Amino acid sequence: MTLPLSVTGQQFIAGRRVASGEATLPGLRAADGEPTGYRFYPASREEAAAAALAAEQAFPVYSQTSPEVRARFLDTLADELDLLGEDFFAIAHQETALPLARLQGERARTSNQLRMFAGVLRRGDAFGVRIDTALPARQPLPRPDLRQYLTALGPVAIFGASNFPLAFSTAGGDTASALAAGCPVVVKAHPGHMATAELTAQAIVRAVEKAALPAGVFNMIFGTDIGAELVRHPAIQAVGFTGSLRGGKALWQIAQQRPQPIPVFAEMSAINPLLILPQALATRAEALAKELVASFTLGCGQFCTKPGLILVLRGEGMARFTQTLKEAVDQAPAQTMLNAPTLAHYQDGISAFEAHPDMQRLGGNDEAVRGQAQARLYQAPVSLLLAQDPLLQHEVFGPLAVLVEVADEAEMQAVLRAIQGQLTATVHAESDDGPLAQRLLPALSEKAGRVLFNGYPTGVEVCDAMVHGGPWPATTDSRGTSVGTKSIERFLRPVCLQNVPAALLPPAVQDANPLNLLRLINGQWTREAISPSVD
Amino acid sequence: MTLPLSVTGQQFIAGRRVASGEATLPGLRAADGEPTGYRFYPASREEAAAAALAAEQAFPVYSQTSPEVRARFLDTLADELDLLGEDFFAIAHQETALPLARLQGERARTSNQLRMFAGVLRRGDAFGVRIDTALPARQPLPRPDLRQYLTALGPVAIFGASNFPLAFSTAGGDTASALAAGCPVVVKAHPGHMATAELTAQAIVRAVEKAALPAGVFNMIFGTDIGAELVRHPAIQAVGFTGSLRGGKALWQIAQQRPQPIPVFAEMSAINPLLILPQALATRAEALAKELVASFTLGCGQFCTKPGLILVLRGEGMARFTQTLKEAVDQAPAQTMLNAPTLAHYQDGISAFEAHPDMQRLGGNDEAVRGQAQARLYQAPVSLLLAQDPLLQHEVFGPLAVLVEVADEAEMQAVLRAIQGQLTATVHAESDDGPLAQRLLPALSEKAGRVLFNGYPTGVEVCDAMVHGGPWPATTDSRGTSVGTKSIERFLRPVCLQNVPAALLPPAVQDANPLNLLRLINGQWTREAISPSVD
Repeated sequence: MTLPLSVTGQQFIAGRRVASGEATLPGLRAADGEPTGYRFYPASREEAAAAALAAEQAFPVYSQTSPEVRARFLDTLADELDLLGEDFFAIAHQETALPLARLQGERARTSNQLRMFAGVLRRGDAFGVRIDTALPARQPLPRPDLRQYLTALGPVAIFGASNFPLAFSTAGGDTASALAAGCPVVVKAHPGHMATAELTAQAIVRAVEKAALPAGVFNMIFGTDIGAELVRHPAIQAVGFTGSLRGGKALWQIAQQRPQPIPVFAEMSAINPLLILPQALATRAEALAKELVASFTLGCGQFCTKPGLILVLRGEGMARFTQTLKEAVDQAPAQTMLNAPTLAHYQDGISAFEAHPDMQRLGGNDEAVRGQAQARLYQAPVSLLLAQDPLLQHEVFGPLAVLVEVADEAEMQAVLRAIQGQLTATVHAESDDGPLAQRLLPALSEKAGRVLFNGYPTGVEVCDAMVHGGPWPATTDSRGTSVGTKSIERFLRPVCLQNVPAALLPPAVQDANPLNLLRLINGQWTREAISPSVD
Repeated sequence: MTLPLSVTGQQFIAGRRVASGEATLPGLRAADGEPTGYRFYPASREEAAAAALAAEQAFPVYSQTSPEVRARFLDTLADELDLLGEDFFAIAHQETALPLARLQGERARTSNQLRMFAGVLRRGDAFGVRIDTALPARQPLPRPDLRQYLTALGPVAIFGASNFPLAFSTAGGDTASALAAGCPVVVKAHPGHMATAELTAQAIVRAVEKAALPAGVFNMIFGTDIGAELVRHPAIQAVGFTGSLRGGKALWQIAQQRPQPIPVFAEMSAINPLLILPQALATRAEALAKELVASFTLGCGQFCTKPGLILVLRGEGMARFTQTLKEAVDQAPAQTMLNAPTLAHYQDGISAFEAHPDMQRLGGNDEAVRGQAQARLYQAPVSLLLAQDPLLQHEVFGPLAVLVEVADEAEMQAVLRAIQGQLTATVHAESDDGPLAQRLLPALSEKAGRVLFNGYPTGVEVCDAMVHGGPWPATTDSRGTSVGTKSIERFLRPVCLQNVPAALLPPAVQDANPLNLLRLINGQWTREAISPSVD
């Protein structure tokens, strides 16, 4: 394959390509760690600052654009992504080892996600308008005219994930929701797929130009250690992150230590417990075991919502379940991981499990395949979970799961109290399990952002109702989500205008309701205009 | 006056009164710092932990109560507050020096605030329901049934303010919104009004009993250094705070340093800039000056939204404005502050202004009145603001304001960029000032939670549209508010239920919509039930 010349490895700052120093960051092939031939310039401190300032400069204009202007921009951007061709997918596959069909599906998800936010802007519920009109005759004091709406926080720094090089990266959910909210962005390109990031960024720049928006609406810098510098920059007003607990926590701490701390939404870590209740075990032991192994080895176990902890209530079917699990794991083929550091982390994770005296290995092919990961299944005594042993609380990114037998309902409730916050929790139950499932549901809802029945958590639907979030350490703020339309709220804040003259009111809060928003007016939800006052 | 015997100074833990050690905390009279005769037990670490655990124990039951049950509880609590009589007000006046009429007005505000949250629960919009129904035939993959709703975060630790011993204290906005959200609370009683806090807490306990709720729904501890211990306790899942920058930041840092960090909403500090535009100055110079002094000396300047920074665009009327300001400040009577430490802080603030070489004193009575505060007005060169001199960025709690003359629009925009986040920003403008006001409005909205025209910010209406929040250091999270119905969102998080059997769904997300909520169903806002699927 010839290398597309357009990958220059320079920073994207307000529509210009900028570089200083040497292009010392080589792109690497996921399969063998060899160079792709592309080289990238690590951003200097000055370039990181310039990117943040470019976003700040674009903010006053971009944040005040109409929702229709932003919706058209997001549609244009989606179209640009859809035009990315074979070269793009070839590079993305080289950098991530993800199969072509998966990358094409992820591209569709990414462009549809942008179109979904265009729809949110046209539907208008992200404005959150609440109006209390003046009551000049009220005793003992008149009530002023008060009009609340949601407005953009400011420039957002975005750190994408390795495992979704499109949907959670340069043009992924954080970028889409920040741009929809009216926030310019500075993306720190993920070092695992820099050429993919660059080609995606070029598509975004084309969309910014076509939409005639300020060039600083989108910026991207390359580098490995420059993220901290970006988060420290005073122009940055929020951070979106998807990745490891260690990485997310580090950026979050930097954001808190600024003279002006800023909100960070980091989606970090989960072991995604999956509970199997007695009737489900008795009637579906073999099928459950096979589906489970398929789920936790899917995409080499590199999903944020991989079910990593299998909690089975002891009962009829346990032996069949365990035996089938073991066989399926033994037969699971070795797979290439996203990159060499990810494989090394996975192997460190396996070593920690092997070294733990109470951890019993149940299955997994021992044959070493160069540069590939083998699936692993361990069994742990429930006492380890109840004692909050760190090894069982921390995510191992890769095709590894842990089976824990739980004696009874009381022990299951104790386990649910002992585990940390999660992105998901899953229950497998048949009709006779219903009352038990109902008693467990509150504890599951308390610990996870999403609770699902009789399925597997690795599918994350992009829609209004999705929550991809959860209590720490799943995320830094359980009140947010990084998937679905509610994710826009992470980058919005309310402002109240009091007695502002009608001529100066923004469209969202004008009497005539020109944006046709659903608004809370004097305690009633309505799309009606506000009638002129008679007094 | 005889002391009501019912003030025992013990902790409130799950409906019981508990104390260990000695009652070493004396209540003090605001007017002269002399003991009121009441004494309080500083909570031990064990008592703080017991209060947090009591709240945790109440959580599973209380968080699952129906909105109508919680609404009736809040109504009952409001009624109990309204029954507080002369004894209560006499104590509150002793402890805070706030006039009786003011305290009565504040009580009405506090009980109406509780009733407002009862109304929010009955209106149902705090559930934020979003449902995407299953699409089993969708290609390439079916869509599962997804149902999102908002659920309580967990037990909340609450730290009230000195300046509103009812509305921002034991039964104030943080307590009301947390209880409405389904979160049990642990209040750290404000040391400046402990007897007021105790009598309020007794009213809350009566309401908890009448509503037959778990006793741990409400808990309160006394003490001065015990707050940190409370915030560190693993049972506590969120913090509400109103007070100083120093106090709020300290608790916020403790919350971030926990093994499981938790959200803190702290309302901390603001200088509340007030802008006077040329035509307003020319036509209303004297009236503006008099109203302004009345506003920043109201209640001895002890409002979070006191206008502390007066920014005047130089022009016709400046001399009249300054002269009238000076006269009004000179004539302002001395007033008693909330307590001796508050007065000492105010005097420290004045000393810092007097010591600053560029700060010119414009007005204020010099006569020392024992235990009372005199109003002060200073003038500062605009260069100090543009240089972000710390003295001009930090709130001085008390009847002090700073006047700054600004040369032109460009300089005013530069000043707005230089100041920190604010609770409020105010503009005085006449019709000819309209275009200028319109150009300034985006910068004002970027810096403040509330922007008001031709008024004074010290009135904070309790309603749907109010925002009492703003960017750091006004609060720790500009996405929240501590006044108004939106404040409930600080204590709620979304959960998504995927393919959960109908029989197990909570009422908010059931097909039949038994709570008659306005819900976002398949992209449409509706109160309709979901029809049974035909496939």
